[in-house]
Amino acid sequence: MNTSESTNYAKDTICAIATAPGTGAIAVVRMSGKDSLKLLWKNFYPKNKSLTKEKVISHHLYFGNIKKKNGELLDEVLISYFKAPHSYTGEDAVEISCHGSEYIQQQILQLLIESGARMAEAGEFTMRAFLNGKMDLSQAEAVADLIASESSMAHRVAMQQMRGGFSAKIQELRSQLVNFSSLLELELDFGEEDVEFADRTQMRMLVDTLKNELTRLKKSFQLGNVMKKGIPVAIIGKPNAGKSTLLNSILNEEKAIVSDIPGTTRDALEDTIIIEGFSFRFIDTAGLRQSEDTIENLGIEKTYDKINQASIILYVCDISDINKESMEEMLDEFKQYIHHPNKHFILVANKIDKLKKVPAHLKDLLDLETVFVSAKRNENIHLLADTLVKHVRKQNILKELVVSNSRHFEAISKALESIENVDDGIRNDIPTDLIAIELRQALYYLGSITGEVTNDEILGNIFSKFCIGK
Amino acid sequence: MNTSESTNYAKDTICAIATAPGTGAIAVVRMSGKDSLKLLWKNFYPKNKSLTKEKVISHHLYFGNIKKKNGELLDEVLISYFKAPHSYTGEDAVEISCHGSEYIQQQILQLLIESGARMAEAGEFTMRAFLNGKMDLSQAEAVADLIASESSMAHRVAMQQMRGGFSAKIQELRSQLVNFSSLLELELDFGEEDVEFADRTQMRMLVDTLKNELTRLKKSFQLGNVMKKGIPVAIIGKPNAGKSTLLNSILNEEKAIVSDIPGTTRDALEDTIIIEGFSFRFIDTAGLRQSEDTIENLGIEKTYDKINQASIILYVCDISDINKESMEEMLDEFKQYIHHPNKHFILVANKIDKLKKVPAHLKDLLDLETVFVSAKRNENIHLLADTLVKHVRKQNILKELVVSNSRHFEAISKALESIENVDDGIRNDIPTDLIAIELRQALYYLGSITGEVTNDEILGNIFSKFCIGK
Repeated sequence: MNTSESTNYAKDTICAIATAPGTGAIAVVRMSGKDSLKLLWKNFYPKNKSLTKEKVISHHLYFGNIKKKNGELLDEVLISYFKAPHSYTGEDAVEISCHGSEYIQQQILQLLIESGARMAEAGEFTMRAFLNGKMDLSQAEAVADLIASESSMAHRVAMQQMRGGFSAKIQELRSQLVNFSSLLELELDFGEEDVEFADRTQMRMLVDTLKNELTRLKKSFQLGNVMKKGIPVAIIGKPNAGKSTLLNSILNEEKAIVSDIPGTTRDALEDTIIIEGFSFRFIDTAGLRQSEDTIENLGIEKTYDKINQASIILYVCDISDINKESMEEMLDEFKQYIHHPNKHFILVANKIDKLKKVPAHLKDLLDLETVFVSAKRNENIHLLADTLVKHVRKQNILKELVVSNSRHFEAISKALESIENVDDGIRNDIPTDLIAIELRQALYYLGSITGEVTNDEILGNIFSKFCIGK
Repeated sequence: MNTSESTNYAKDTICAIATAPGTGAIAVVRMSGKDSLKLLWKNFYPKNKSLTKEKVISHHLYFGNIKKKNGELLDEVLISYFKAPHSYTGEDAVEISCHGSEYIQQQILQLLIESGARMAEAGEFTMRAFLNGKMDLSQAEAVADLIASESSMAHRVAMQQMRGGFSAKIQELRSQLVNFSSLLELELDFGEEDVEFADRTQMRMLVDTLKNELTRLKKSFQLGNVMKKGIPVAIIGKPNAGKSTLLNSILNEEKAIVSDIPGTTRDALEDTIIIEGFSFRFIDTAGLRQSEDTIENLGIEKTYDKINQASIILYVCDISDINKESMEEMLDEFKQYIHHPNKHFILVANKIDKLKKVPAHLKDLLDLETVFVSAKRNENIHLLADTLVKHVRKQNILKELVVSNSRHFEAISKALESIENVDDGIRNDIPTDLIAIELRQALYYLGSITGEVTNDEILGNIFSKFCIGK
C-alpha cells in the first residue's frame, strides 16, 4: 500500500450523517480527522460554560447547543469525543447526537462543512479504520455485510468475518507460504550454484494442504452466498397443483396472482422470508406441462433454470387428484431430482382439505419426505416451515468458515490456480524461478484478501459500495 | 393530573429504536426506567472486564459486546448511561449505539424485552419527560414538531416553542388571571355578605389586555400554520399561459404533465420546495376559462378553492400573446385579487423568449409587481424566487410569537370565549358566581396548553401522534 496516500487521507477532517436516512427521534452526525474537536467547537456551546475543548475527555457525553453562524439556536445536542487512537477510525473523532429532523441533520452537516470539514465519501470512515490499522480489509468489508444483514444466517457470516475468523485462516495459509517463498528466493539469489534451501518433499506436502484448504474455501462460496442471500427454494409441480397458493400461504400475502386457470403463473416469482433466523428465497415457477402457449413455454423453460439454482425443491401435487398410475408417473419424475447430490427434495401433498379418506396407494409417499398441507386453508404450513428449518439445521452450515464475498472468491480461485501451477512445477521439475513467480502470485492474491497488498483502485472499488457515513 | 398514573408509568422500563427506521451506519436503541442499567447488564459484556454496573458513570461511553442468550455475539456496541434525573426522560436511561443493520436493531430490542423491558408506546419517552417535570406540555408537543421540521421556518417555530417562549406567554397571561380568580372565589366564600375583594375596574383592564393578547394569538394561528406547512402559492392564469411549465421550472422536475393542448392540467398539483429556508407550497391550477368539459370545469372550480387558500398568487400570462385590449381585460381580472388584504399578488409575464420587442402597452405592467420569465427556457426563474423570498422577509413573520398547534388554537379560542363572557358579565353586573365559573373555564383552557391541567385522554391523544422512540 502506498503510505503517502494514507497521509493524504489523514489531512482532511470528514463528516457525515451516520444514522439511517429520514426522520427519527434522534440522529447522529459523525466527524473524523485531527481537527474534529476544533471544528465542532466552532459550532457547539456547552451548557456548562466553563467547559473548554481542552478540558473535553474522551468517551464522555456533553450537553449543549449547536448554533448557526448568526447565533440562532439550531438544536440542543449531546456530543461525544473519541481521542485517537481510541475511535472507530483510529483518528480523533466526534459524534453529535441531535434531534432527528432532516432539516437539523442537514444544517449541522452544513455548519461542519462551512467550518472546514469535508463531506465523507462512501465508506471513508471504514477505509480510514483500515488505513490506520484498526482492521484488515476483509474485516472492513464485513462491516458493510453486517450492516446489510437481515437474517441471523447473514449476520453470522458477516460477524465471523468482522471478528477476523476468516482473516485468521487466510493469514495462516499465507504465512506457511511466505516461509517457502523466501527459501526459494534465496535459491534464486545464489543463481547458478544450484543449491536447494527449500526441501521439495516438504514443499509438496504444504502445497497439497494449501490446495485442499483453498478448494474447500472456494467451494464454500456457494454456501456463503446462500447464507448471505437466502437459501433458494424452488416450488415446482404440475399445473394447478396449487404452487402459487402455497407461496402465498407461506409468504402470508397475496404476492402471486392466483386463479383456477391452469398456467396462470408465467414469470418465476421470488420472495424471501426468514424462518427462525434462516432466510429462504422462495421461487414460484410455471407449472410443468406441455403447452402450446409460447409465453407459457418460456415460463416453463425458466422453471428448469430455477430448479438448477435451487438448494431445496418443493414438489407440489394435488393429493386429491392422484391415482395409482399418476402416482407412479410422479414418482418417476421425482427420481430426476431426488438423487441430485446438492439438492434436497420435499414432496408437498397439497389440497388435503379435498381428501375425504386417505387412499391406500398414498402410503408409498411415506417413504419420501412428505408434508401434507392445505395451502388454500393455511393448514400445516407451519409443518412445512419446520421441515425446511430442520433440514437446514442438519446441514450444520453455521459452524463452517465460509467465503461469502465475490472478491474473496475470485482471489481464492486465483491463488488456487497459482498453487496448482506450483504443484505441477514441482512435479515436472520446472526451473525454480518460474515456481517462485507462481508462489509470489499466490501470496499476492491471498494478501489482497486481507489488504496486506492492495492499491487505490481495489480500495476505491471496495469502499464505493459502502454507504456514506460508514 | 392524576399522580398515581405517573407512578404507574414509572414502574416499567421501556425501550425502542430511536434513530430513523431502516439501515444506517449506526443505530441507537434507547431504554428508560429505573431498571435500565440492570436490564442492559443482562446482555452487555464490557470490553473492560473489571467494569461492573455499579462502577458505570453517568454520561460516559463504554465499549463492549451484546450477546444473545446462547452466548453468540450479536454486535459490538457503545453504551451510555444517564443517571436520573440527568436524562431526557428524567429517569435512569441507557443508549446503545450499534451497527445499523435492521436485524441487529430488532435483535437488541428483542433481548431487552426478553430481559424485562417493555416496548415503548408512541411518544412515551417524551410523555415521561413531561410527567417528570422536564418540560411542560407545549414544549413536549414542540419536540414532535421539531423532529418533523423540514424548513428553517418550521424549525424556528418549533424551536421557539420547545425553548418555552410560547409557554412563558401563556403562563404570564394565566398567572394574571389566577390572582383575580382567587379574589373572586374569596368573595364567594363570604357568600351573602356582598363584599368586593376584586377591584372591578382593575379587573376590566386586565380582561381587556387578555382579550387583546388572546385575539392576537388566535389570529397568529393562520401564520403559524403557514410557517409549519409552507406558504401556499397558487399559480393561476389563462389556459396555455405556461402555468405547469412554470411549476416544473420552479420544482426543477417533471411533476406536472406538460402539453400544448389547452386544459391539460385538471387536478390541482402541489409541491413544496424550500427557498432560502422558507417553505413554499406551490399549487398549479387548471386554466381559468369557460369549458364544455365537465372534468375540466371541476378542475376550474377547484382552482377558485385553491386561490382562497393561498397567501401568494402568481398570475401567469403569455406576454407574447397580449395586446392592448386583452391587457386591460387582464388588469380588470387582477383587481379581484389585488385588493384582498391577506393575499399577495405577483404577475408572471411568461414566454419572454417569444417576444422580439417589448410593446408599449406592456409598460402598464411596470406599476404592478411583475417578473418577466421564460419558464420553458428556465430564464429568470431565480428572479421569481427572489421576489417570493423578499416578500416573505418583508412580513417579518419570523420575529413573532405564533400559535402553530391546532390544539393550542382551540384552547386559546375557548379561553378567549370565556374571557369575553367575563367581560360581558362585568359590564352587565352578572352575579359573581357566574363570572367565577367563566374565569375558571378560561384558567382551565390556558392551563391545558402547558399541561398544568390535563387528563389521560388529552395526553394519550397528544403523544399517540409521536413516533415510537421519541
